Order: sequence, then C-alpha cells, then structure tokens
Amino acid sequence: MKINGAAGTAHWEQGPHIVAIGGGTGLSTMLRGLKTLTSNITAIVTVADDGGGSGMLRHDLGMPPPGDIRNCMQALANVEPIMEQLLGYRFTEGRLAGQAFGNLLLAALNGIYDSFDQAVAGMSHVLAISGRVLPVTNADVALEAEFVNGARVLGESKIFRCKKEQDCRIRRVRLIPEHPAALPETLEAIGNADLLLLGPGSLYTSVIPNLLVDGVSDAIRASGAMKVYVSNIMTQEGETEGYTLGDHLAALAAHGGPGLVDLVLANSRPLPERTLKRYESEDAEPLVLDRERVAGMGVELVERALVSDTSDYARHDPACLARAIMELYQDRADMRIFH
Amino acid sequence: MKINGAAGTAHWEQGPHIVAIGGGTGLSTMLRGLKTLTSNITAIVTVADDGGGSGMLRHDLGMPPPGDIRNCMQALANVEPIMEQLLGYRFTEGRLAGQAFGNLLLAALNGIYDSFDQAVAGMSHVLAISGRVLPVTNADVALEAEFVNGARVLGESKIFRCKKEQDCRIRRVRLIPEHPAALPETLEAIGNADLLLLGPGSLYTSVIPNLLVDGVSDAIRASGAMKVYVSNIMTQEGETEGYTLGDHLAALAAHGGPGLVDLVLANSRPLPERTLKRYESEDAEPLVLDRERVAGMGVELVERALVSDTSDYARHDPACLARAIMELYQDRADMRIFH
Repeated sequence: MKINGAAGTAHWEQGPHIVAIGGGTGLSTMLRGLKTLTSNITAIVTVADDGGGSGMLRHDLGMPPPGDIRNCMQALANVEPIMEQLLGYRFTEGRLAGQAFGNLLLAALNGIYDSFDQAVAGMSHVLAISGRVLPVTNADVALEAEFVNGARVLGESKIFRCKKEQDCRIRRVRLIPEHPAALPETLEAIGNADLLLLGPGSLYTSVIPNLLVDGVSDAIRASGAMKVYVSNIMTQEGETEGYTLGDHLAALAAHGGPGLVDLVLANSRPLPERTLKRYESEDAEPLVLDRERVAGMGVELVERALVSDTSDYARHDPACLARAIMELYQDRADMRIFH
Repeated sequence: MKINGAAGTAHWEQGPHIVAIGGGTGLSTMLRGLKTLTSNITAIVTVADDGGGSGMLRHDLGMPPPGDIRNCMQALANVEPIMEQLLGYRFTEGRLAGQAFGNLLLAALNGIYDSFDQAVAGMSHVLAISGRVLPVTNADVALEAEFVNGARVLGESKIFRCKKEQDCRIRRVRLIPEHPAALPETLEAIGNADLLLLGPGSLYTSVIPNLLVDGVSDAIRASGAMKVYVSNIMTQEGETEGYTLGDHLAALAAHGGPGLVDLVLANSRPLPERTLKRYESEDAEPLVLDRERVAGMGVELVERALVSDTSDYARHDPACLARAIMELYQDRADMRIFH
C-alpha cells in the first residue's frame, strides 16, 4: 500500500478498483469520503436528468445533462477552494438563474470536444480529479415511469409530482429510447472492478437508470467484484414512500435481473427525534430493514453507523461511509484470500 | 535581469513597469506579444461595452462588462491549451448563443466575490496570468457619443451604426454617469509605471473611455513614465473614417487634456494590395501619418515595421510590436541614464 500525503489524506493507490454506480447527491457524498482513502475509483453516472439547470442545457444545447457528472467532479476535484466554489456556484438572476457554473464548464467542453465522454474526460483533466467519472452512456435518453395504476409520465423531473398525484407506487421505469449502448469504458471498468457499489441515492432516478443501459446489468452480474448496495437512510418523497430495504432490492432485481447485489451496507445508528421531525413534513421515514426478507433474497446485510451524530440531516457522513466501505472490503478480501 | 525559462519564454522580471491602457482586441494582441518578454505588466481595461455577450451579462446580472477583461486574461493566461480554448469558446445555440465561456467564468466569480475588481483578481489567480489586469473602474458606466451635427447616441454598441447614419465625425464621447471613481490600484499602477502605453485599439470605444474615468488622465500626466501612443494601423469603420494620426492625437487631447503622449509608435511597413482590397469594403484605410502636424503637437513619431509580411490582415504582429516597444524603451532608458 502506497500512502501519499497529498492534501493531508492517505491514498491507497494499490487498493481495490472501486466502481460506484449512481447519480445525484448520494453518489457525490460517498465519493467525497472515498477520495480521502483511495484514488482508485471510477464513478459511473446516470444521464437521464431533465430538470433544473441540466434540463435547460439539454434543451438549449442538445447535450446530455451535466448536473450529476458535475456533482461527482466537484466531490473528486483536487483544485483550490475558489475553483471548487466556482464549480458549485449558481447564478441568481437573468437567463442563467439557477444554473451551476460547473454545468456551463461541461457544456463548453462538450462544444469543444467531439463527444460527451471526451468532454467529461477533459473536465476531469482540468479539475485534476482523483479517479475517473464516466457517463454511463453517450446517448440522449429520457426516463419514463409507469405507476401500478397504469399511469405513465415521461421525464425524470416530472416523476416526483406525478407520483404524488397518482398516490401509488412506481411499477417500473424505462429509458426512452430503450437499451442505449453503454460507453465501452463503463463496461470495462465494471469488468475490472474489485468492489462494485450501487447507490446510495434516488432509487428510480439515480441508481436504476444505469441498470437499464445496454450491457450494464450483465456486466455487473458477470463481474468478479464484491457487489454492495449502499442503502439509503430514509425513504424518499416522490419515489419510495413506504419502501422497506427489501422493496429497494426487489426493485433493483426487477429492473436489472438477479445477481447484482451480494451485500447491503445499511445504517445502524438511530436518528435523533429532532431530525425525524424535520423529515415528517416530507413524507420521508427511516428505511425499515426487513432483515428476514433480505436474508431470504440471498443478500447479506451489514449494519454500521453511517450517519454523523451531530448532523441535523439524515445523510450519510462521508467519512463514516467511506471507512465502513473500505473496512468491509478489507475484511472480505482477507477472508477470500485466507479461507 | 532574471531570465525565466517557463513556457519557453524569457521574462524580464526586473524590466520596466509597463502599464497598457485600452480594451478590445488591440490591447490583447499587444499583451500577447509583451508577455513573452516581460511579466512586469499591468493592463488597465475599459468597462463601457454594452454589446454582444458582455451586454447580455450586464443586462442580466447587473455586472460590469466582462468581454474586454476576458480578452486580456486570455492573452496573459499561463494555462494548458484546453483551458485557453475554453476561455474563448463561444456557445452556438440556445439562450447562451454567442456568449464566451470566459465571460461566464468572470460572471460567476463576480457573484462569489464582493466586488468586480476582486472577481477580476480571482480570475487572474485561477488562470495564473502573467502580470495584472485591472478594470479602470468598478462603476457601472455607459458610453455616449455626440456627433459634430449635434446628434447623440447612448450605448457603446450603438455608436457604430449611428455614426454610419449621421455620416459625420464624432465630436466627443462621455461616460454616463460622468467622472466615475477610478479603481485606486489603477491610479497607483499608472503612478508607478516606467512605460505607459495607450492603445492600440478603437479610439473612441476602447482607449478614450479610460481617460474619462476620474483621475486617470491626471495620473498619466503626472506620471514620470515614458508615454507612448501605439497607433492603429488602419482607420476604423464607424469610428475614425478619414482620421489621420494627428486627428487621433487631437481626440486624445480633447478628452484627456494635454501631456498624455510623449511619443507615437506607428507602423512603417506598407500593406500588400490584396490586404488593402479586403478592407476597402469596410471603409478602412491605412492611417495617414501626417508627420508635420504630429511634430507641431510636440509628439515624437517613431515608425517601425509592426505588421507581419505574411498576414492577410492589417493587424499588429504581436511579436514585432512587443519587440519594437521594448527596444524603444531600452534605447530611451539608456539615453536618460547616460546623457
């Protein structure tokens, strides 16, 4: 193991090849923690968003949505504080209101380079990021949700409201057009991974869309990596109200087939009353760990303290989560070797 | 003299303090040449533009126009080729069409920092520029032109068309509001300069607006620096049709008072026929050097080959211009010391 002292953090450059698949703030929170322990990490990121600043650039420039990629870049960037602040800066007025500067950076690079994945690689270079960020596909895709009452809605950003209106569960989501080709580097990274992480993050809009890209689920299944689903801490309004952990795993299997997850890493630390109160108005509750059902699905459940005891929000603590992941891997890797 | 080999160029860090005052492509062309010979350079840049991408950001975000500053930053930046390409990249579609990415960078920094000059300093830092770029003022100013027939037009970007419509000379320009306060660092830089360069660039929209900022003309007059007007090569459509060099100097004096210029550096190399043909349709001609009138104004005229003999455009060659400026200064500095 080679320890680099750069930026006061230890880098396990000889550590496991980690591939994290998802999108949104869940993935970037995890990356922010992991990058202090390893630079041997690839983030594979969904490109189905069509809301907010990403939606604006998609519509205006006909480019894939930059927001999820930008979040990951921000988490992995090794630049001066002002540059990191810049990446997340949102304009407040005029026709750019709400737009993040980092999105515009990726949009400009997308105009300069021949393809979106090249633009993402260019941005990685400019920001000297730890590891690698890959769009799951270069294709221009939209997300459609179908509810159990048969209603459908097209567009990731519309799912939240439609779910509230229909007041029933999501039956499935699909990409339009279906089965876009995966970026070859994405499949290659999955194939070479020692540790595959699905989540944390929005089940239907951040994690599952990646599984619908042609070849991704098969590559995960075929991979010799340890496959971990990093469970959300809470249910999510507009997506997974009332879902247990088992429901999450069932949804993954329903969209990507069996054999995607060996093990679930879930939070064991109870949330303080004041935090729960804050989430009540959002229809979000701590995820129920239905241990017997999960066991019945052939998936091992590992519970660790993954939230900070000082935060008022029910979010993964980047350092706790990263440490738990690396320890889990080290324990199992040792077992694989010695038993 | 300390020679740095960085980026394959020699830096005269102990050379003269150079201050270049202007805006537009004229100033940035000169900076591109000068930065290969010295890093001891301050660009003082006009902020009266209200057209194109700068006008859009001015209108949307209530910020000073970023375009002229961005051009100078691009010229002085010491970054990788992709970053320099990014700065000048213009979006081609949607609500950002025509906007330069570098302008958005400065706009985001202006949102993060408390004042425009701090944002400019932040951009200088991010781009690791040689030397310094200063907005002449932090004030929000517009440019008004008055023609000899009495007609007036408000807004730098409208002067071109109005001049064509009125078909007569510009009598004077003024800033609205008049007499904005100069940035203190601007006056300080002028006071400390060994070599002051006015121009090259658009007479009424790039050079003179700086002279109208409170204290700037007085500071130039009071400075012990060698004061050089770097003459344009051609007259400019919509501003200076039919102007001789003497007319340019008279306009400078009419707006900034006497004593701003010791010496004029003008091009001596005749332009090829094919180049002149190209400019005919633009109502632009080689500037007539009315030597006797210039001498009568107490200004020394130095003529040097400042255009490349291979270019099809009547533009200063950055290397020729920079070399001529530095040689001129060295000759005179030696004379000052030894005679």
